Amino acid sequence: MTPAKLYLEDLHPGQTFESGSHTLTAAEIKEFAARFDPQFFHLDEEAAKDSLFGGLASSGWNVAAITMRLMVEASPIAGGLIGAGAEIAWPRPTRPGDTLRVVMEVLDVTPSRSRPDRGMALVQSKTFNQHGEIAQTMTSRMVVPRRPIAETEK
Amino acid sequence: MTPAKLYLEDLHPGQTFESGSHTLTAAEIKEFAARFDPQFFHLDEEAAKDSLFGGLASSGWNVAAITMRLMVEASPIAGGLIGAGAEIAWPRPTRPGDTLRVVMEVLDVTPSRSRPDRGMALVQSKTFNQHGEIAQTMTSRMVVPRRPIAETEK
Repeated sequence: MTPAKLYLEDLHPGQTFESGSHTLTAAEIKEFAARFDPQFFHLDEEAAKDSLFGGLASSGWNVAAITMRLMVEASPIAGGLIGAGAEIAWPRPTRPGDTLRVVMEVLDVTPSRSRPDRGMALVQSKTFNQHGEIAQTMTSRMVVPRRPIAETEK
Repeated sequence: MTPAKLYLEDLHPGQTFESGSHTLTAAEIKEFAARFDPQFFHLDEEAAKDSLFGGLASSGWNVAAITMRLMVEASPIAGGLIGAGAEIAWPRPTRPGDTLRVVMEVLDVTPSRSRPDRGMALVQSKTFNQHGEIAQTMTSRMVVPRRPIAETEK
């Protein structure tokens, strides 16, 4: 069943949404790195042993991109996930074989003063690995539409 | 000529590094979106006209990933670019055909209290499009190695 779409009015602090999961392979880590973050600790298992990571580690931007995919698939928020900006942190490396899943939580909801058709939701997402450890935390400012007048009047 | 590698001791607030450029095609925008951010305004020119973007727009994570690539290619910082976290914002959409380039600026440099071999650099990066407008701003906390003792003694 497709969940009903949630407009700004339907969001409230404390609401959570959980994603499916994605297992990251060494091949994916290297492919992403070759294109977007070509550094040896993201590209070569042997060489990575002598890096700060002590072994092959995913680019943080790969973790961010996978997190986005999982969030897009799981989010019931109307209008899609449109971020104006975010704070992001990677407290530990993500490794080949790690399985990531995301828990999103609404922290705050603010109607726009100048645009009556929308508002901003502050959404925290935690990306966990299979050990329940946090691979990424992110707090995103998202543009969310208000319920269209026609639907309110129904 | 490969620029000399800069260690923590060589960095100071106000230092800037400029990247090369990358022109983003509609095909790249759609390919990235299909994999990591499958929302209609990143995938379909026609449908995107009715979105908040008013036309096809790149995923912010695609802009972030391209920015990372440009930074990795341009940065003279020793040990690579290892971010512990970042604040990121996309003040305007990035469109097919936009040419992006990055200017990095060192904001702050802090030796680690607990780890004598490294420190943290706060680095701001501004990603400009071909009109000189800001497509992305980012402030990153980066782990930077200190100059190894052997090299200091030379």
